[in-house]
Amino acid sequence: MKTLAAFVFPGFETLDYFGPIEMLGGYGSETEIITVAKNREPVPSVHGQKIVIDKTIAEKTDYDLLLIPGGVAAHEAGADEELLQWFRDVSATAERVMTVCTGSILLGMSGVLDGHRATTNKMAFTRTVPIAPKVDWVKEARWVRDGKFYSSSGVSAGMDMALAVMADLFGMEMADRIALGSEYEWHKDATRDPFAKLAGLV
Amino acid sequence: MKTLAAFVFPGFETLDYFGPIEMLGGYGSETEIITVAKNREPVPSVHGQKIVIDKTIAEKTDYDLLLIPGGVAAHEAGADEELLQWFRDVSATAERVMTVCTGSILLGMSGVLDGHRATTNKMAFTRTVPIAPKVDWVKEARWVRDGKFYSSSGVSAGMDMALAVMADLFGMEMADRIALGSEYEWHKDATRDPFAKLAGLV
Repeated sequence: MKTLAAFVFPGFETLDYFGPIEMLGGYGSETEIITVAKNREPVPSVHGQKIVIDKTIAEKTDYDLLLIPGGVAAHEAGADEELLQWFRDVSATAERVMTVCTGSILLGMSGVLDGHRATTNKMAFTRTVPIAPKVDWVKEARWVRDGKFYSSSGVSAGMDMALAVMADLFGMEMADRIALGSEYEWHKDATRDPFAKLAGLV
Repeated sequence: MKTLAAFVFPGFETLDYFGPIEMLGGYGSETEIITVAKNREPVPSVHGQKIVIDKTIAEKTDYDLLLIPGGVAAHEAGADEELLQWFRDVSATAERVMTVCTGSILLGMSGVLDGHRATTNKMAFTRTVPIAPKVDWVKEARWVRDGKFYSSSGVSAGMDMALAVMADLFGMEMADRIALGSEYEWHKDATRDPFAKLAGLV
């Protein structure tokens, strides 16, 4: 069983987080999902649902997997050096590190993605990628894998990326079963990105 | 602003709930999302994330919109007559009533859907629809609208249904903006249902 640090910050984008969790949860015995935040108090999504915290960042850095959602408040979260250091510490030992939407910018602020290929929200792309200028940003991709780092395009793209991670960890048959079980038409082609065009990036 | 009772029960399917919430949240001023449960204690999703409760069912029945997710524990939740009465009371006055996946079975157990067309999870269809035999169950549909009742197929279908509700309430332009903002390729055709075929229903 893999331990997953599913990180939240106040105002995280709801589907950035819970879409991947649906897929990463597998069939119940593949992953142990641990909700992690800076502090102990329940953390509200951008839509107001407050999530109870299992672990603070001070308590533990040793996880197999890390998930970082985005949201309009992602930059603010990235102003916290203690949090950025936690990203560095967890990423150093984790087997896979996943970011969704502007969660890629948030992780990028820690320097962990410097020199790595990554993608992020397409509608906010031009405005946000200068915040982490040493990342090799990919304009057109549903998601990008670079070694142990997986980064996705905006919001719903996190589900496609999470299924790819499950395929890499447990095999394509498992990933296909999860997609079928959630009646999800998985976009398997990581390079197909209609939103890059809609955003005028390509 | 519309008030949305977003109902949860222990073991609710994560994406059944948070997928529609992403879409129903709109651009922040369309809906007020209120997390409702039987009791006051935080309620865990099937993946273990505990959600803080805003209102118990005893506190309020007057909402504009109602969302009921499904999950493998939906039948157990439906054994509670007090809860079924709350569904009847809220549905009597709500403007729109939405069910996702086996949430349709749960609402069906209250009798509210009797004589109405509705759909539910396709993988569990044959096994679960006898639990609410007076509903006019539709085998092949991504989602079904019958008057104020909207019901969706399994898990991820709730997002497509929720966008259709937003289109009906606030116009297609709003719904398209929400889909674009979440980089979601909205399946707009309610009758297209590849999972009905995969489940051998048609």
